[in-house]
Amino acid sequence: MTVKTLLSEDRLPTRWYNIVADMPEGSLKPPLDPATGEPVGPDALASIFPMSIIMQEVSGERHIDIPDEVREVYKLWRPTPLIRAMRLEKELDTPAQIFFKYEGVSPAGSHKPNTSVPQAFYNREAGIKRIATETGAGQWGSAMALATQMFGLECTVYMVRISYDQKPYRRSMMQVWGADVLASPTDRTNSGRAILEQDPESLGSLGIAISEASEDAATHDDCNYSLGSVLNHVLMHQTVIGEECRLQMEMAGVYPDVVIGCIGGGSNYAGLAFPFMRDKLAGSREIEFIAAEPAACPTVTKGSYTYDYGDTLCSTPLFMMHTLGHDFIPPGIHAGGLRYHAMAPLISALVDLGHMRAVAYGQTEIFDAGIMFARAEGIIPAPESCHAIKAAIDAAVECRDRGEGKIILFNLSGHGHFDMSAYDQYLSGNLSDYAYPEEKIKESMSRIPKMG
Amino acid sequence: MTVKTLLSEDRLPTRWYNIVADMPEGSLKPPLDPATGEPVGPDALASIFPMSIIMQEVSGERHIDIPDEVREVYKLWRPTPLIRAMRLEKELDTPAQIFFKYEGVSPAGSHKPNTSVPQAFYNREAGIKRIATETGAGQWGSAMALATQMFGLECTVYMVRISYDQKPYRRSMMQVWGADVLASPTDRTNSGRAILEQDPESLGSLGIAISEASEDAATHDDCNYSLGSVLNHVLMHQTVIGEECRLQMEMAGVYPDVVIGCIGGGSNYAGLAFPFMRDKLAGSREIEFIAAEPAACPTVTKGSYTYDYGDTLCSTPLFMMHTLGHDFIPPGIHAGGLRYHAMAPLISALVDLGHMRAVAYGQTEIFDAGIMFARAEGIIPAPESCHAIKAAIDAAVECRDRGEGKIILFNLSGHGHFDMSAYDQYLSGNLSDYAYPEEKIKESMSRIPKMG
Repeated sequence: MTVKTLLSEDRLPTRWYNIVADMPEGSLKPPLDPATGEPVGPDALASIFPMSIIMQEVSGERHIDIPDEVREVYKLWRPTPLIRAMRLEKELDTPAQIFFKYEGVSPAGSHKPNTSVPQAFYNREAGIKRIATETGAGQWGSAMALATQMFGLECTVYMVRISYDQKPYRRSMMQVWGADVLASPTDRTNSGRAILEQDPESLGSLGIAISEASEDAATHDDCNYSLGSVLNHVLMHQTVIGEECRLQMEMAGVYPDVVIGCIGGGSNYAGLAFPFMRDKLAGSREIEFIAAEPAACPTVTKGSYTYDYGDTLCSTPLFMMHTLGHDFIPPGIHAGGLRYHAMAPLISALVDLGHMRAVAYGQTEIFDAGIMFARAEGIIPAPESCHAIKAAIDAAVECRDRGEGKIILFNLSGHGHFDMSAYDQYLSGNLSDYAYPEEKIKESMSRIPKMG
Repeated sequence: MTVKTLLSEDRLPTRWYNIVADMPEGSLKPPLDPATGEPVGPDALASIFPMSIIMQEVSGERHIDIPDEVREVYKLWRPTPLIRAMRLEKELDTPAQIFFKYEGVSPAGSHKPNTSVPQAFYNREAGIKRIATETGAGQWGSAMALATQMFGLECTVYMVRISYDQKPYRRSMMQVWGADVLASPTDRTNSGRAILEQDPESLGSLGIAISEASEDAATHDDCNYSLGSVLNHVLMHQTVIGEECRLQMEMAGVYPDVVIGCIGGGSNYAGLAFPFMRDKLAGSREIEFIAAEPAACPTVTKGSYTYDYGDTLCSTPLFMMHTLGHDFIPPGIHAGGLRYHAMAPLISALVDLGHMRAVAYGQTEIFDAGIMFARAEGIIPAPESCHAIKAAIDAAVECRDRGEGKIILFNLSGHGHFDMSAYDQYLSGNLSDYAYPEEKIKESMSRIPKMG
């Protein structure tokens, strides 16, 4: 039996898919200026993004060409394998077929370089010499460090101080790729200095790091900012995953009945799902789309679909999206990449349209699923990806109970090599299963601005 | 241009290559019983290995079939990619073409599962329920934990206490795959108890851990021992690397002029090199074979080619091999997998025959090479593999100086995701460059037994 379906390099997709072109008119609401309540124009972002990326952000074109230079860097690890989890199927005794697309083979260990690479490229083309960005545990920072290294740009990563101190390995990874990694808050920015004045021992937060990085970009002409999820262009860059996967499933002679992924900002799931969603939007296929989020940060399952800020400090435009309130700070779950208070507007709109749904899982049950997967398939998954695995296992068990031989496809967005301390906690029985933070969510949702 | 040459699963090799069949008669000397000075027979190993493996150890057959069950597990990550390091070539401005075979894609992150998987399989076939083995930093232990999990065996790993305490991530990895990981010395074996009586705070050593694991196997009928390098059958299992690589180089339309790898016990290099060495032994190809070892443990470049024990405690037969003396303890370099006092008898014999040669590198220069590689190709290599990279860079620079467009092939035996603290030391300028331990080597070599 075939376990892995490999795509040769010459079949690496040449275009990204922009789902905006196929969405019902009016279903995607524009970002608004919080001061005026009017839609923001492209110019509003020009101090921190190059115009080529801003034009992708607002594009209505169905396909956008992947530049050759980007494809050459993608080839360092892409196309990624499509793997049939036959040993897991057997373990679950299910008639379902379980396939996963494995994005952990990238040098940074996740799907993130699919967008950091084109972002670095477009910035270099625009004459930018340096990228400033933030990182929490380090996934996005390392993806951007890799990408800037590939295009000869400098990279400044504002890394939340507590992670900088406690998780030195991702920091070293960024430094291996030549990035300048700073413990945030720093004394290099007004935002950082303001925090340090109040609290010289501040451990930092993702919100502070975002403020520092975007201030750095806004105040230096040769420096731009870069974001790793949520925005339309980021999700579009990730569709290289699903475009490859369509070809691979065709090679394997199957088509998915269920498409699964984890969601934090939404980009890895969008990347796999949107090229299949296209068939659903066209009415040519019935597919179930399931996105898995942490019960500790249940953005889609418990949040409101409304206009809110993208960041804690209210410095962004307002986006129409599922949100728990811009100042909601989720519990410290190990799946750090899923700790975002809101959801990509594109994903939110598709949920609102009824084309996909979300499920929420607790921390212990996703590690149960991750361990079962590692023991069956070998690969040790990132805690974020364990959410997708849990949803895939649930779907496969349902198939067993109903005797249905469905084709289940999920995105294994990254490996867990830098998350072994989380596995250690789980295995030693010291993992906390955070309760649903009901009161905190009620509070933060009360502070969502009232618009429209 | 093509960066990666991928082999589809249906072309995964069906046979391992046993180089013994093609070596000149009498060039491979038999292991000797230290008491009698006579060759040891297969039965001497029957208390710790299954007969199927012992027969492979002494086989003269040119090819041995890979069992279907082993190939099915190999398919979880094999065939591994052959990658052309085009960005590194450009960086070095060399007319040479540099190819590498990437073994870091295995779930354990190195080439080691190529032999742990068949070893687990043959033991299960022989009715064995449990494997006992030792591990230092954890590479071999995690490969065996993975393999036993795949075949439903139990696994007991005696892990050197100082690594158990200081390097918890590899330990967690083994536990994720269900292994029982013990800090050695333990109170479960006579060898362990003897050490603990003398020093209850003992930090352990690889020698002690080997003694504990082999004692465990020898004293329990349902338990066998397992070794991760040095022996003939281990090197043979690794030839799946080179057999794949031959097919891939043919697809890429090239044949190697230089074949490079790092050597500790010798298995990853043998795995890549032997299927090409076959052509050299047959006289049909001129190929340069270069093995890279650490200057801190310069087994082949400075050792004697003579009979010596395989372990520190003199419990093995005597093997004809390059050795620095069985009780030589190398400095604590980060490339822990290359800290072995001797070399595989097969590699040693091929050096003695003049078919290959070794080079030795210091710790700083191999990290220089590793960083250059990571910045060009993305992948962060294991410190062991950095030795191979350094040798490949040297060969490519020589090609530049001479204007030669040679085809250089090396084995990238593993990734460095669990070695980031070593990179951190390097980047912060705190890496020690151990001097060649001349006096220690002179001393330990004086204790090599005088045979034949």
